[in-house]
Order: sequence, then structure tokens, then C-alpha cells
Amino acid sequence: MTTREQAVAARAASRAVQRLPSEARLAALERMAVALTENAQAICEANARDIDEAKAAVETGSMDANLLGRLRITEERLDVLATGVRDVAAQEEPIGRVIRSSTPQPELRLEQETVPIGVILIIFESRPDVLPQLMSLALKSGNGLLLKGGKEARHTNEILHSILTVAIAPLPPTLFALVETREEAQELLSASDVIDLVVPRGSNALVQHVQSNTKIPVLGHADGICHVFVDKSADTAMATAIALNAKTNYPTACNAMETLLIHEQYPDRDSLLVSLTDVGVTLFGGPVAEQAIGLPPAQSLAVEYGSLELTVEIVPSVTAAIDHINQHGSGHTDCIVTSDLSDASVFLNQVDSACVFHNASTRFADGYRFGLGAEVGISTSRIHARGPVGVDGLLTTRWRLHGDGHTV
Amino acid sequence: MTTREQAVAARAASRAVQRLPSEARLAALERMAVALTENAQAICEANARDIDEAKAAVETGSMDANLLGRLRITEERLDVLATGVRDVAAQEEPIGRVIRSSTPQPELRLEQETVPIGVILIIFESRPDVLPQLMSLALKSGNGLLLKGGKEARHTNEILHSILTVAIAPLPPTLFALVETREEAQELLSASDVIDLVVPRGSNALVQHVQSNTKIPVLGHADGICHVFVDKSADTAMATAIALNAKTNYPTACNAMETLLIHEQYPDRDSLLVSLTDVGVTLFGGPVAEQAIGLPPAQSLAVEYGSLELTVEIVPSVTAAIDHINQHGSGHTDCIVTSDLSDASVFLNQVDSACVFHNASTRFADGYRFGLGAEVGISTSRIHARGPVGVDGLLTTRWRLHGDGHTV
Repeated sequence: MTTREQAVAARAASRAVQRLPSEARLAALERMAVALTENAQAICEANARDIDEAKAAVETGSMDANLLGRLRITEERLDVLATGVRDVAAQEEPIGRVIRSSTPQPELRLEQETVPIGVILIIFESRPDVLPQLMSLALKSGNGLLLKGGKEARHTNEILHSILTVAIAPLPPTLFALVETREEAQELLSASDVIDLVVPRGSNALVQHVQSNTKIPVLGHADGICHVFVDKSADTAMATAIALNAKTNYPTACNAMETLLIHEQYPDRDSLLVSLTDVGVTLFGGPVAEQAIGLPPAQSLAVEYGSLELTVEIVPSVTAAIDHINQHGSGHTDCIVTSDLSDASVFLNQVDSACVFHNASTRFADGYRFGLGAEVGISTSRIHARGPVGVDGLLTTRWRLHGDGHTV
Repeated sequence: MTTREQAVAARAASRAVQRLPSEARLAALERMAVALTENAQAICEANARDIDEAKAAVETGSMDANLLGRLRITEERLDVLATGVRDVAAQEEPIGRVIRSSTPQPELRLEQETVPIGVILIIFESRPDVLPQLMSLALKSGNGLLLKGGKEARHTNEILHSILTVAIAPLPPTLFALVETREEAQELLSASDVIDLVVPRGSNALVQHVQSNTKIPVLGHADGICHVFVDKSADTAMATAIALNAKTNYPTACNAMETLLIHEQYPDRDSLLVSLTDVGVTLFGGPVAEQAIGLPPAQSLAVEYGSLELTVEIVPSVTAAIDHINQHGSGHTDCIVTSDLSDASVFLNQVDSACVFHNASTRFADGYRFGLGAEVGISTSRIHARGPVGVDGLLTTRWRLHGDGHTV
């Protein structure tokens, strides 16, 4: 099959799966979960091949050593993935939910119901464990998938795809197609007539490449420039704990803090900054902080470091913090630490981002932590789904009208 | 201001309007309604200038005479438009509706709430009466608008825009910008960083042009190839009434029937077709109908005539009708006429279109008839909003997390 034929077959499969009773999809999900643990040895062996090749690539300098950890699949990880598939299965039935109904005229009944989007192309890097997660979300919601993984995880992706498409039988295996080469993925980006949505999961460069090379709607985020604003009334222990967690818990994550804004009247600024430098964070200053604290200047006020580096700026008010975030942020996740409920309310109402937090680390911006089950991705787009996206982001709606010969 | 500055100003205005209490937006909507009737004379005078210029253009052959009717604004029409604005005002408050809430951890409260999308570019042709409708929907939902009307309605659009932006004071007039030239609209299609959504309302050519020339998400439909399937058990009077209404009530509308599918065992085929030809409908046949009835062949099975012409095809089963529609349709609106509830259920579940109707004319696919108040447009996309789009299509969501120092 050509990639285009794969997309057409995935739509036919999606329509077939959508017609099935809920129980048939749940049973197939259970078989997927069982297959993950029953085939653990074969999967781990394939994964070992990827790891070996990756180690060789790291030695020759053609791969970043950080990728190695994301590649690895263990038996324990497979158990966790199987549990994840069962969690997705246990969620509320997503297909055919009536979200609006009315009677526009006597004997004329209108319903708006949820249905699968159709065919989704997902392009992901390194982590092969997203493959079972995405397949479980797609099966639950009746969508066809075209999956393009990174070549560094090729053996693992192939065996996972093979085992899981066998497991869903008698559901059509064409529901999930594996796209092998970069050229094929590139071809699919032009196939806006047979693909409904593209989800790039990976580096900023990947997302920007996809956004610039397709007319298909894209769900994702290129930048994650998240802010923590420490208000003048912030509890000092809480401010330090949240800033440390948001910056250092997983610095490469898109929901890590990249800019710390501090109210000019916050009394404990020095110890807040020392607690960050103590654990190895390098500070850069915005224009005011540069003058006031003597920090080296930040490259700009919109840097995504993805590392233990941080921009610090001092602001005169909650309004100034909001303006700074709306101007320089990426609309991903921004947090206020404050004891003043009025300031919190102003901040949460006026910061124009997908996620706005009061007294909680930006690291909470995640589908699992939000309780959505598995995560399709995080979107900073304002169309369709926004923020962490679960099954709901894989649905659209259909209007059903039941008449008795009605004409206009 | 450059068009880009207009877009940036519209976002600032959207954020300001979003912060206002509901009452402030409702009061501004009421002032809009009053302004429409109070300034009726000036508006009709401006409209008369457009009509005069259009008549001259029709005489020289540079404009289609059909457009004249769509251009005209009367005092009565302004009263209807004022009522429409008040209807929009009376709808449920769209901003800040909590659509999901949970407690992912003790003392950690998560809410997903509705918020405006932000800045929307709407490109529309001929009908200036859509301007007050779109402005009322945008104000109700807190969105900024960039409006590009057709040059044939220039004087009317200008006075409507001027009167209505004055009427909303003290709300910022920059919430609604009028884009004057085609070149400016073209520039805006490249401004994907400051515009969130484009809505082309007009011809197939306009929609396709917009879709091909922007990276901004597009809400709309290029094609409206709607089907009526007359099942073997269809009530004959009902089948005739629905087919006539769907084809002849407003043949240029996107929700008019373009293909009539007839079950091969439907007993009253000849009189159904005669009732269509009797009122001037020209019939073309698909491969089977061409042979069986001797109709001249249709150009293809996916023609949007937009006139009193119709493709007729004979199918052996409801499944064949569904396959025909999923293959050749445009995913807009499709109808089954049947007395068999099981056939109706199969059709409504398996036709993969935005609107699926049982025993009701395709002409019902319309925001007003669906009871959505004014209509932003009709979308055949499967992302964001689908089918007739009202205020809900101008909303996105924001996640609010309320913690007590929570870290991960």
C-alpha cells in the first residue's frame, strides 16, 4: 500500500470501528493490554537492538546521550503501559455522547453527538512508549492512526505496532498504520484531503517543520515558555518550593519554568534566587533585574532554555506581570504564587494561556496529572483542543435531525 | 494603523472585553440594536449608493444580477437585524462556563472554562447584513474581529461598521476592524501569529483561495454536495415534498440537494422524477440511472450545480447509498427518507457528514433553523466546530488549577 492508500484504509477502518458496540472496542483494548505483557520479552529484545544502535550513535556523536533514557522499554514499563491501556478502556464511552439536543419545531428533534475525527497523523520522536498510549486513545475514540516514529526507535516501534495490530483482531489492522520513512511522512503532510489532523510530538524544530509544511490542522505546541510570578504576598516557603520544582524537576519538559517574575515588593527575593543558584540554576536578568540585581542580561524575554537556566525579571504589579506574560509568553502554562485571592483571580482571569495556575507548579500541565488518562499532546493553539489533550481532542460532532417530512 | 496593528489592537480589545462583567457586554449589544434602527435612514442611503453602483455593474456585465438581491438593506431588514442582535444578547453567557472540574489531588482543584478564541478574520461577499450578525456574536463571546466585506457592499459595510463601533463605546472600538482592500486581506492571511481563525463566507472559489493561502485555521466549507436518499419504504408524498424542497427552495444555497439517490425497489420513482421536472429541474443520471431511465449522464457523481439541475442515481440498498455518499459527498448534509427506523438508524450512524437527517429537508442545515441564533458559518472541517456554527464555535477553553503550594 502507498501511504495515501494507508490513510484511505485507516478512514474505512475508523468508520467500521465506530459502528461497533462499545464492548467490542473495550475487548480489543483488553487484548492490547494483555499483548503488551505477554510479549514483554520480544519487545525488550527489539528495544535492546535500538539501544545498542543508539549507544553506537552516541559514541560517534551523531546522537544526544539524553535520548538514550527516553528510548528504553523495560518489563516494568510494559506493565505500566498495560495499566494505562486499561485506564483508557475504563474511561467514559466517548462516541455517541449527545452534548446538545433541542426541538426547533414540533416533531423535529435535533441532537449534536460526539463522533471520531477520522484519520490522524502522529509524528513522534524517540519515546516508543507513546505508541501504545496513542493506539489505545485512538481505538477508544474510533479514530484511524498513521504513526511515524523516530528511526532511533525503529525496532521497538515495529514490534509494538505489529503485536498491537494483531491483538485488536477481528478489528481491522488498517486502523493503525506505521509510516516507515521520513519521505512518506512528508508525502502525508500534503494529503489534506485524506488526513484530518496532524499531531507532532517532539522538538520545537519538528513542530515548526510540520506547521510550515502542511495545510492539515496541527495540534501541538512549538514553544513552552512558562512563567512563575511570585506576588508580593506570596508565602516564601511556597514560592521557593514551586519555583524549584517548576525549574528543576524536569528542565527539558515543555511545562518547565523558563521565566521567574518577582514582585518588586516581595520581601524574600534574595533567598529565593539563592535557593535556585544553590541547586545549579544559572540566572539571567530582564532589563530591570539586570540593573537591580546585577544579573547578566537574558538574550531576550522569550527564551526557552530547556535546561537549568532561567530568566528573572522584577515587575511592579500583578498587572505588569500579566502584561509581561501575554506579551512574551507562549500561551502554554503560567502560574501565580500569592496569598492574595484578589490578585490570584485577576491573574487567572487575565493571563491568556492554555493553563493558568494559582499556587501550583507549572509541571502539573500534563494530561496524566490532569486526570485525562493518556495524553495525545499539549496544544497551544486556540482552535479545537487547548492545553493537555486527552480523548476529547480526538472527537468531533455530528448533527442528527429526526423529522416527520419537515420542509422549510 | 496597518492591518497587522489592527489585529494586535483587536486582541488587546478582546482581552479587555473578556474582563468585563456580562452586563457590560449585554448593554453594548442593546446599544448596537438601537443604533441599527435609529440610523436606518443613513444606512439605507449608503445602501442605495451600493445598489446604484451594482446596477451599473450589472448593466456592463461585470456583476451577476443575482447579487443585487443579496445587497439590499431595508428598514424592515434593519428591524430584523436589531431583533437578531437582541436574540444573541439573550443567549446563555458563553464566557467562563466551567465545562469540566475535578480534584486530581487533595486541595488541588482543576477547572476547564470557556474563553474567547481571540482574533478572527472574516471574509464575506455581497451580503452586508452579515456584518451586524457577526459583530453581535463576537461581542457576546468577547472576540476581536477583522472584517473584510465585498467591495460591492462597501458603502453599507462602512456605515454599519462605523455606527456599530460607536454604539459599543465605552468598549474599545478596536474590537471590530474593517479591512478595506483585497491586498490588506491577503496580508492578513499571512499573519498566523496574530490571527487565530479565518472564516471565509462566500463562493467555493473564495473558500478555496483562503484555504490555499493561509496557515491560519480555516472554518468553513468549500463544497455543499448534499444528498437525499429515498429508501424503498419511503412515504411517497413525503419523499416528493422533501426532494422538491431540498432542490428548489433555494438552489444556490450550500444546503440544497445536488444528488438524489433512489432505492431500486422504491415503487414511485417515475412520479418523483416528474414532480421535479415539472417545476423545471433538469435531471442527469449516474451510471445506473443513465441506463435504467435514459437520463443524460452527469459530469461526475460529485457535482455542485447550485441551480435547478440534479444528479439522480439508483442504488440497491441503504448500505450502497451510504457508501455512495461517503465516497462522493462533501460531508455537509445528507438525508434519508424512510419509514423503516432500522434503515434510518443505519444511515444516521454511518453517513460520515456534519449533518445527517431523517425525514427532513437538507435545507434545515442552518444556524438559525438549528436555533443557534446568528450563524458564524457552516463548517465541513472535522476540527474545532462542525456543521452550522454559532457562538460556541467562537470559544476555546482555558484550564485553571487552584493549589496550595502543590509540586510534582
